[in-house]
Amino acid sequence: MPTGCATDRLPQAASTRTDIRNCSADPPYLPPTAINTTARLAALRGTMRAHSVHAYIVPSTDAHMSEYIAERDSRLGWLTGFTGSAGTAVVTWDKAALWTDSRYWTQAERQLDCNWELQRTTWIKSIGLWILEAVPVGANISLDPFLFSIDTWNSYSQALHGSGRTLLPIETNLVDQVWGDQRPPPASSEIYSLPAAFTGSSWQEKVAGIRQQMEQHVRRPTAVLLSGLEETAWLFNLRGNDIPYNPVFYSYTLLTNTSISLFVDEMRLSAAARQSLRAGCPGPLCVELQEYGQARAHLRRYAQGNVTVWLGTEYTTYGLYGVIPQEKLLEDSYSPVMLAKAVKNAKEQELLRAAHVRDAVAVIQYLLWLEKMVPQGQVDEFSGAQHIDMLRQAQEHNRGPSFQSISASGLNAALAHYRYGSAPVRAGGARAGSRDWAAGGWEDGTTDITRTMHWGVPTPLQKEAYTRVLMGNIDLSRLIFPPNTAGRVVESFARRALWNVGLNYGHGTGHGIGNFLSVHEWPVGFQSNNVPLMAGMFTSIEPGYYRDGEFGIRIEDVALVVEAQTKVPFLTFEVVSLVPYDRNLIDLSLLSLEQIRYLNAYYETIRARVGPELQRQRLEEEYRWLQRNTEPFPLGSAATATATLGTLALASLLSALLAGLQA
Amino acid sequence: MPTGCATDRLPQAASTRTDIRNCSADPPYLPPTAINTTARLAALRGTMRAHSVHAYIVPSTDAHMSEYIAERDSRLGWLTGFTGSAGTAVVTWDKAALWTDSRYWTQAERQLDCNWELQRTTWIKSIGLWILEAVPVGANISLDPFLFSIDTWNSYSQALHGSGRTLLPIETNLVDQVWGDQRPPPASSEIYSLPAAFTGSSWQEKVAGIRQQMEQHVRRPTAVLLSGLEETAWLFNLRGNDIPYNPVFYSYTLLTNTSISLFVDEMRLSAAARQSLRAGCPGPLCVELQEYGQARAHLRRYAQGNVTVWLGTEYTTYGLYGVIPQEKLLEDSYSPVMLAKAVKNAKEQELLRAAHVRDAVAVIQYLLWLEKMVPQGQVDEFSGAQHIDMLRQAQEHNRGPSFQSISASGLNAALAHYRYGSAPVRAGGARAGSRDWAAGGWEDGTTDITRTMHWGVPTPLQKEAYTRVLMGNIDLSRLIFPPNTAGRVVESFARRALWNVGLNYGHGTGHGIGNFLSVHEWPVGFQSNNVPLMAGMFTSIEPGYYRDGEFGIRIEDVALVVEAQTKVPFLTFEVVSLVPYDRNLIDLSLLSLEQIRYLNAYYETIRARVGPELQRQRLEEEYRWLQRNTEPFPLGSAATATATLGTLALASLLSALLAGLQA
Repeated sequence: MPTGCATDRLPQAASTRTDIRNCSADPPYLPPTAINTTARLAALRGTMRAHSVHAYIVPSTDAHMSEYIAERDSRLGWLTGFTGSAGTAVVTWDKAALWTDSRYWTQAERQLDCNWELQRTTWIKSIGLWILEAVPVGANISLDPFLFSIDTWNSYSQALHGSGRTLLPIETNLVDQVWGDQRPPPASSEIYSLPAAFTGSSWQEKVAGIRQQMEQHVRRPTAVLLSGLEETAWLFNLRGNDIPYNPVFYSYTLLTNTSISLFVDEMRLSAAARQSLRAGCPGPLCVELQEYGQARAHLRRYAQGNVTVWLGTEYTTYGLYGVIPQEKLLEDSYSPVMLAKAVKNAKEQELLRAAHVRDAVAVIQYLLWLEKMVPQGQVDEFSGAQHIDMLRQAQEHNRGPSFQSISASGLNAALAHYRYGSAPVRAGGARAGSRDWAAGGWEDGTTDITRTMHWGVPTPLQKEAYTRVLMGNIDLSRLIFPPNTAGRVVESFARRALWNVGLNYGHGTGHGIGNFLSVHEWPVGFQSNNVPLMAGMFTSIEPGYYRDGEFGIRIEDVALVVEAQTKVPFLTFEVVSLVPYDRNLIDLSLLSLEQIRYLNAYYETIRARVGPELQRQRLEEEYRWLQRNTEPFPLGSAATATATLGTLALASLLSALLAGLQA
Repeated sequence: MPTGCATDRLPQAASTRTDIRNCSADPPYLPPTAINTTARLAALRGTMRAHSVHAYIVPSTDAHMSEYIAERDSRLGWLTGFTGSAGTAVVTWDKAALWTDSRYWTQAERQLDCNWELQRTTWIKSIGLWILEAVPVGANISLDPFLFSIDTWNSYSQALHGSGRTLLPIETNLVDQVWGDQRPPPASSEIYSLPAAFTGSSWQEKVAGIRQQMEQHVRRPTAVLLSGLEETAWLFNLRGNDIPYNPVFYSYTLLTNTSISLFVDEMRLSAAARQSLRAGCPGPLCVELQEYGQARAHLRRYAQGNVTVWLGTEYTTYGLYGVIPQEKLLEDSYSPVMLAKAVKNAKEQELLRAAHVRDAVAVIQYLLWLEKMVPQGQVDEFSGAQHIDMLRQAQEHNRGPSFQSISASGLNAALAHYRYGSAPVRAGGARAGSRDWAAGGWEDGTTDITRTMHWGVPTPLQKEAYTRVLMGNIDLSRLIFPPNTAGRVVESFARRALWNVGLNYGHGTGHGIGNFLSVHEWPVGFQSNNVPLMAGMFTSIEPGYYRDGEFGIRIEDVALVVEAQTKVPFLTFEVVSLVPYDRNLIDLSLLSLEQIRYLNAYYETIRARVGPELQRQRLEEEYRWLQRNTEPFPLGSAATATATLGTLALASLLSALLAGLQA
């Protein structure tokens, strides 16, 4: 699945798009999916006036900077109608605008009504400029300080700095006020411990490791504040169901050198979980359970002592940060817990590898099923998505999808972040491609894979675009690079084959992934705010190409950062997703010999790892499908040996020659 | 020449180096080049105590954040003995340390005495940590606020934040105090106007363009503050000689919407320059001349009005910034003058192209001369450097070198930023490579080129390393990329061929270049703080490889960003340096067919542009040398067609086949 943040690059061709909506027509044209927000906006504006607020900023996140959120926190979705996972709304007394990235432009045009301007960028600087034009000098620009990270707050502060407008935090959320009792209630499902077989180390070992880092730090922090939901879940080996497809639960943790405070609804903990947390009481490994709502007050009291609190500025909210005096803060982009979580130990690596073998079995079953059903016209996007979820659940250790499976056929595949609709999946015709993405939550790991298939005759453009996306996937996957290289400086290898012919994609190239945790696990990935790549990190690699209203392509695998076979300890990737690509869409003559050789080696690995599991499960037809789809490609078809010389005669001659040599 | 900043990556293998100095021996071993700094340090510490300063930070820059500086501003060099262009010293009451990047490690070991620790990194965070360990809570850490940019000040402030130490600006420079009357006097040479034939537009047109940007900006700035020396030189089409090899002069400019104040020593302006600046008086195009030393006081007065001052935080000093109230500041990384200067118009592009043709003539004369002289043992590094400077000066429009020419033979070539010594240039043996870098200041442009040659039998490692550096140069030069791409995200293409076998280089990949201005012109380049690449920008492309104590390689060209031949307006590079590479060092079997095809096309361009100029100047021997060295390479030798198949039989067959096809 696509990475949570759009690429840092400016989106291409934003200015030449025409909006699906036609708000200047009389009456305005809106697609049937648009939501009428007139009453909600009027109510919000009433509250804004009552608080003397001239512009109110509404983000898509929750108080933990979660990328995916519970319905209860979907303030942006409720207010605007737009349900994409990333966006920012600003409402003034007479205007309203939504900012989102290119993944979501089409979706936003389908969901917003004419109350909303759609701004096709996510730069805070551009939001700031819009606000400066929309409200006069002297105006108050407000936001909920618990929904903005320190870094984001600082960016707004800088964008408005010296403009004569005031950036004013208001602790009462104005959207919640008008949402009222229509707002969904808090989560109440059970929070449980992961079995020891599925954890890399005990929570006590993890706590000891973090405390050691605290002791060794020159600033000698006395505490680490965890406000990311994944941090607490990872540290204590606990999981919950508070956010759909993300096995986390609402919580904060304050880990000090002598105590551990976990802020969570105690009643929700399973008996085993409570017992595990309380086993070390009293003592430095005793977890004190406190109310979720008490985190801020507790932190404020703690910060009055002779203490230093270590926290991650990328995802700690300005609301919490503000209660700690400046001189008692130790600020890094990410807390030591986030960094420890990102590097998987040997056991965690094996767990993730094993999950990918079972995931491959389910995906191969699905692809075989599609291959048979689609030509009969019996699959639509919804039934396809249901089928893959069902196949995964039939495998061992499955915990349900780690994301709402995406099944996008034909023109819907052009929506980079589309889920599924009711469009039939067709086998033939110019728009016949189907892009299926599916991620799985397994007790031992999280998986995330995208394959794009075509069961008819692809157009030359579809085939070339698919092949170039694949070339990008291969070129990044086989890259060898020095330790401490940032993903940001190597992700262009996934784009080059597309760039060469003037194509590109508007989303990031990959994201970290957890051991039965979030399918987007920060801070690993290829964005500018990701940390350097280190051995033991997992990331997705997922270039794509999308042609509005026609078709879309993505090829996504998960890869582990491993040491390369160089004399010095350089790094490279080991792809752990184990499903072959669509042979029907590959134009071999565009690939270099190295790329074909890489593909063949990858296919050998798939056969070696997935083949025995298919046989063990007696999936004979699937096994034959796998063999058929992982046949080695002939090296003689490569671009450099033939096509680029531009002589068909030579091409044929070489093919014959090479085929002979291989025989 | 290497870019001014080291790569943002962590330097490789820093920990495994052994220092040339042996300070733990008794007596300590120091190379003869080390400078005794004991007395200077004692004097500085005396002044520090008098000011209650516990740690004093000394940077390598001047008050304009110049990369290359006048002797008068070489406080770091005088204090430490280290004369590299980038570094930071910190002196406490009992310790002293110098931070510099991998380009300069060897040089620093040769120049520092045992008073100095050498820290092999440049991260301000690491400087901050060292200071925190060196001085107690309550200590004052001081610096001269006119020698630190706003951004650098903020980094130190953040690194020391909350540590209980105080960051204290002191306007009196403590090094200057102890340097006393030994410090060189200020510059007094003439400041002159560039002839109209060598400027892209008149200074009045440039001023009008900047004022238009001020009017169109939503914050409506009333003034732009120029504190970069290149900004003022570019804006007024003026040049000087205040800094060796950089045709700039000490100055500030405050350009408001109604007035222009130029802070410079008026007596130094040529009559023509003064006349040009005063031609529009009185009026909005009248340049008011004021004392250089009055800039700060004038700015302080101006900032008392209802004004907004636009400035670049990357290079404006904290000392100037501090006199402008926060709400009257409009901060960007670079001023609009820096950005306008970076994009060359059609005339400026033609001027730079023409300068490169003449530069190529001089370099080709030089390479031919070396080829004849080196085998006779008649060249050393110094005489080589003198010869290329002399050849350049014999060409039209030459203004002397734009950098002290680098002539590095054998093991000295391993020093990425070495100038020259007296080492003989030898033709044979394992360390026989010679790396010659030379840049020219021409009235119409600035040039910058590095070629590495070998006149004997290179070792297999030398040949492979050279070829991989060349592959990197080619791969970046021929890259096609979307508009608004940052250099940072594509520079890895210049490293990949080296990375593939575990090699790398520790400096940046390129830098902008001026029209008879600095040879390192910000903000263009491939570093993280460079601006996105736009058509009309010039940058060097200069991968390298350095093997300590053995040999060094760099291949550097200057390239113009141009539109690519894609349907959409993507960008690519046009290499404007026009000198062939050393055929003796190229292992064709490593190159792909695309790379060879690119080389052949480039050589055709060299022949077409430089050949006629050589003939016009009746340089017949050089013309024959050019023809010989730009012979097309046979495509049949490419890696992918032969070596990777691993069959020698096929290789011969293909060569024959392809030779036949080309005939």
